[in-house]
Order: sequence, then structure tokens, then C-alpha cells
Amino acid sequence: MSKIKRVVIVGGTHGNEVTGIYLVKKFERSPHLIQRSSFESRTLIANPKASAIGKRYVDTDLNRCFLREDLENPNLASYEAQQAKLIHQTFGLQGSQPADFVIDLHSSTANMGLTIILGNENSLNLHLGAYLTSISPKVNILFSTSQQKFRPHLDSICEFGCTLEVGAVAQNVLNAALFQETETIIHAILDYLEAHNQGTAPPVKDNINVYHSIETIDYPRNEIGEIEAMIHPKLQFQDYQPLHPGEPIFLNFEGKEIVYAGESTVYPVFINEAAYYEKGIAMCITQLSKININNQRRD
Amino acid sequence: MSKIKRVVIVGGTHGNEVTGIYLVKKFERSPHLIQRSSFESRTLIANPKASAIGKRYVDTDLNRCFLREDLENPNLASYEAQQAKLIHQTFGLQGSQPADFVIDLHSSTANMGLTIILGNENSLNLHLGAYLTSISPKVNILFSTSQQKFRPHLDSICEFGCTLEVGAVAQNVLNAALFQETETIIHAILDYLEAHNQGTAPPVKDNINVYHSIETIDYPRNEIGEIEAMIHPKLQFQDYQPLHPGEPIFLNFEGKEIVYAGESTVYPVFINEAAYYEKGIAMCITQLSKININNQRRD
Repeated sequence: MSKIKRVVIVGGTHGNEVTGIYLVKKFERSPHLIQRSSFESRTLIANPKASAIGKRYVDTDLNRCFLREDLENPNLASYEAQQAKLIHQTFGLQGSQPADFVIDLHSSTANMGLTIILGNENSLNLHLGAYLTSISPKVNILFSTSQQKFRPHLDSICEFGCTLEVGAVAQNVLNAALFQETETIIHAILDYLEAHNQGTAPPVKDNINVYHSIETIDYPRNEIGEIEAMIHPKLQFQDYQPLHPGEPIFLNFEGKEIVYAGESTVYPVFINEAAYYEKGIAMCITQLSKININNQRRD
Repeated sequence: MSKIKRVVIVGGTHGNEVTGIYLVKKFERSPHLIQRSSFESRTLIANPKASAIGKRYVDTDLNRCFLREDLENPNLASYEAQQAKLIHQTFGLQGSQPADFVIDLHSSTANMGLTIILGNENSLNLHLGAYLTSISPKVNILFSTSQQKFRPHLDSICEFGCTLEVGAVAQNVLNAALFQETETIIHAILDYLEAHNQGTAPPVKDNINVYHSIETIDYPRNEIGEIEAMIHPKLQFQDYQPLHPGEPIFLNFEGKEIVYAGESTVYPVFINEAAYYEKGIAMCITQLSKININNQRRD
């Protein structure tokens, strides 16, 4: 397999997710922390204007600006559209300094633990995911790819890489424990890539649990779009836990329960993510499966 | 003691603290919920523009705009300064529809439980506080008045009233359990005021625990104002718990602990409140005391 020559560690894709921003600043103060012998490590604050004002974005969500057709569209002139083009022209496949691996650091108000979101199932990504699940019980592997070939996310600028989604933590709040756990995962990723380059990657078990996003569920809303119910207390912070048909998912303001109407057990994630109210997403529904990372057979 | 004739329930003083906003909307849909026989109940979204965009404020913090000199200053023209004048002219002492009691609904990313912030120690406020602590172990009484005669907060527009500060909950997130607990407290306040008016207020014990704000502590910062440390994991979410001299309060990004340098045991609150990073407040330090609510003797 090809070697990794340049890794880019990205913070501030969303300007109010400060764990990644302060980690990138730390690495910029102490670059030796992310240096490895076999590849170059770079850092990037992806949305500096949004980061400076502590908001998710200025004009539009940067992490939805990386569709190829949008990157090639000269008429898209929002701050984030321009920023996406700049990042793509620098670190993209045909960029001036192409990245081989991107680590994009995010946080969530949902109880995402240490989630590794993978955009594709290539062998390096899968083996890395398997390795990370072996070093911390808080690591889960989430695939966001099942229904769309092209992804609008920043980490799609190269084949290898992942989005790290840590939580629960409020926007614009630093949680020291999560900060340290995130840093530990970053070092583990860099060490793994170094070992990969040197042909000494640690063996991992063949089968790993992965979660695949299959759909999203919106809040119940009235005719003018206002939400009419909240995440049910029994579901709050229960990301990655099994949800069975008939179990409550919402509670309306008058105290009435609304249950999950699906036909099989699923595993909700991004439950009550603050930034997703405006996207019409109360939670993302995933299916749990076991995959064999060597022949990618799925059970 | 004088009777309460008009109660105003306020949400959205901060536009990203949505528990209060959705409670006020509920009461506006179902006004019978807050009606009592002996007084009029009104509702108010205090900062409608900020609430519409899900931000704490548009120009400046509305809950710091109620100093008398500012309310009388015609040169203050920010959106919130104008909004404060409008609220004061409507519900203030000399207003068109003066309020006798204000309940201002807030939320916090700190673990504030159900905090009743009182702006003064008048007898009705104290007796109400004592009653509320008797109905829920999550209720704490916090005084924010010790060092300043005039307060800039919305609830200072009348003598009686309180600010309800509930948490921990992220900004722009509805937590159903906290929503219901907050509503329960509001009903308890309304019921208590009704009984007060009717001379049937339930007896409460003479002595209650109260917390008085004495100072604030900022994050360690570098020469350009950037924070250099985070709330220590051992202090995170430990609002109202005793903090002893020498115990850690911060952890810098390199993992070094910074300890509390005070000389006596104190009780920090508003620990890691997202909105206070810009105010230079990592936590508010309080002292715990027991007061006799009938003669207001403090031990």
C-alpha cells in the first residue's frame, strides 16, 4: 500500500468547536509533538473567521462545501465556499501541497465519545479504525457514506483520513478530559501511520463493529417549522445504545411520549446535537454491523 | 406585606438559552397554566431578535443593561439598550404595567442544577427561596448582590423576583428533564405567591443555606488574552461543591495543574460557563452561609 507523505491536522472547521482549535494551537506552539520521521505533519485552522468569533460558520457550513461540483463552481462566493476552494487548492489531490491523510477535529453536544467518522472503507482507514478501537473503549467507528457517493466534508479532499467527533461538550466550551483524550487519539493515529509507512503496523483483529448511518430523524414540527417535542429523557446522551421499535424518542411540551416507529433495532447517534436543529436532524440512525477488515465481508 | 398583583415570566433574555424560550411559548399557547386567582401573569420574550437567531445577544448582553443610569441615558442606542428601556418602561416601577414579581429564565453550561438567584434579601424573596429548597434537593439559593448596590440584571426592574439558572445544558439545546424541572419550579413559585397573597403561605424552616458571590476567577491568559489553561477535570461540573485551598482548579494545555490559592474553603459556581469566557470569568467563587430568614441573622 502506498505510503503517507503528508498529514494535515485540521481544527476550527466549525468555529465554535474549540477542542480542535486549541489542539491545533498547541501543535503550532510545539510542532515536535506531531512530527514523525516518515511523513510531514501540517496544521490548519480551516475557518479562521468563524473561529475568531466563536460561531459555527460565517455564511454557510464549511463542512458541506467540499462537493467537487461546488469546488469547481466559480459562482459560489460565500466566505466558506472560497475557504473550501483554498483548502482544496492547497491540500487536495491536485493541490500545491497534497495531503495524503486528513484528521479533521470536531466536537458535539451529543454523547459521541471518541467517534472516528470514516468516509470510505479503504484498507488503511479500516485497519486504523480497528487499531483505535483496540486502544480505547470510548472509540466507535461511524461510516457516513452508505447513501452518497460524493461527500461534502472537508476530509473528502483526500482518500485517507477521518473526522474525529468528540463529546458530549457544549459549543465554545473546553472540557479538559475530552481535550486530553482527543490528543491521545491524534498521537495514536500519527504513530499508526508512522508504523504503516515503516511496515510495522501492529496487528489488529479481523472483525470490528462499525456503525453505518442509514437515515436521519427530524423533530416533530408545526406548520411553521417550530419544533413541537424534545429528545426524550431516556434517549438523551444514549448515543450508540440500542433503540428498539416502540421505545420513546421524543417528549412533547405537554409531556406526551412519541415512540420510535422503525421495524428493527437501531443505534442513534448525534442525539440532540445543537447545530443540527437548523438542519432538521434530531438524531442520525445507524445500523451496527461487524465487518471483516481484511476481506471487507459484512455480517 | 404587600400583595403581588402582576407576575412577569421572562424567557429569551439570552437568545441561545432555549429552555426559557420554549417554556414561555408553552405558556403563551396555554395561558391557563400560569393563571392564578389573586394576580395577573404575563409572559415576555425579552430579546426577540437574539432569540430568533439563537445567539446570546445582538449588540451587547441584555442582562447587563438594567443599571438605572443606563436606562436613563438617551445616548445608548444598541438594540439591547433600547430593549431594556422598553422593558423598563413597560414593567418597571414607574412603567405602564408595573410588575411586582419577575421570574427570568436562564440556562447554563455549568452544572447549576436549579439555581434561584436573588438580587436582594427582602422577606418575600427569602421565604420563597426557603420554600423552594424544601421541595427539591436540586434547588440552591445564590445571592449576586454582595458587592454592588445596583444590579444590571433584568430582574432588578422590581423589588421581588428571581433569576432561574438551570443546567448543565449546552446553548441552543433543549434538555427535556431540565425543561420539566424548570416548569415545576415556576408552578411552585406561582403557587407560593398565590398563597402569600391569600395569607396561607406554607411555613418554612427558619434557617437556610445560601451562597453569596464574593469574586470571580479568570482563566490564566497569555499577553494577548488567549486562555492558557482549562477547568481542571476534577472541578468540571462540581458547582456548589466545597473547594479547599491547594486543590486543582485549572489544567494547562501541557498537563500542568494550577491550584486554588485562596485561604479558606469556598464553593465555586458557573464553572466553565460558555458565555463567560468573553467576560473573563472561569468560575464565580461563593461563600456558604446559613441565614435565619425571619431576622436575617447570618451565621
